[in-house]
Amino acid sequence: MENCIFCKIAKKEIPAHIVYEDDYFLAFLDIHPHTPGHVQVIPKKHYRWVWDIPIDGQKSPNMGNYFETVAKIARAQQKAFKTDWILSKIVGDEIPHAHIWIFPSDKVVGNKDDFEGNKKKIVDSIS
Amino acid sequence: MENCIFCKIAKKEIPAHIVYEDDYFLAFLDIHPHTPGHVQVIPKKHYRWVWDIPIDGQKSPNMGNYFETVAKIARAQQKAFKTDWILSKIVGDEIPHAHIWIFPSDKVVGNKDDFEGNKKKIVDSIS
Repeated sequence: MENCIFCKIAKKEIPAHIVYEDDYFLAFLDIHPHTPGHVQVIPKKHYRWVWDIPIDGQKSPNMGNYFETVAKIARAQQKAFKTDWILSKIVGDEIPHAHIWIFPSDKVVGNKDDFEGNKKKIVDSIS
Repeated sequence: MENCIFCKIAKKEIPAHIVYEDDYFLAFLDIHPHTPGHVQVIPKKHYRWVWDIPIDGQKSPNMGNYFETVAKIARAQQKAFKTDWILSKIVGDEIPHAHIWIFPSDKVVGNKDDFEGNKKKIVDSIS
């Protein structure tokens, strides 16, 4: 969608610290992180709300593979930041493109503004 | 797991305002609702964290069908409370059994403590 910042990130028209990408989803560091390694996971295609993505698993993107992607990132964050405790939030009023926040607990040690370092930790931990 | 309150709810040893149930998942109203129709979605089987549920979609429960279930409830809440704006949170430190919160925005009209009424609205809206 025109003038949608997340569509522009998905098309690489705006740079981001990308930690994961496949045909349907993109995950990148939030520029206003709650905690070190705070990630946004978005569908590349524009949907207003997370809940607008099809539930039926026959085509992609769909709710099932969206959350499988979120879980992959969560497991990488667990390994990267040495914690089991990973939080997630879906809010949706700030940017009108579906997105899921996923971030380690605030008990983890690290510098939340070290984007390059935190990106590398997550990328190296994705299996 | 013994002494797990959500396992007891899943086994019907503790009552809850159940809005949805299938072989693998159970959804019921939170007893301390943020907003009217605030739901908890849990796997019936005990997992400590949401992220412990298998990603691989071959067996159930799995991440994919967990989130498909959450999305079904979200769409029912949209219809029941006449809003597009449904929020979700995964935290996980309060009860050591995987759970996802899903609740309408605080802009909706309704009484969050009317459990029977809110349950009926959601149940009637699940497609």
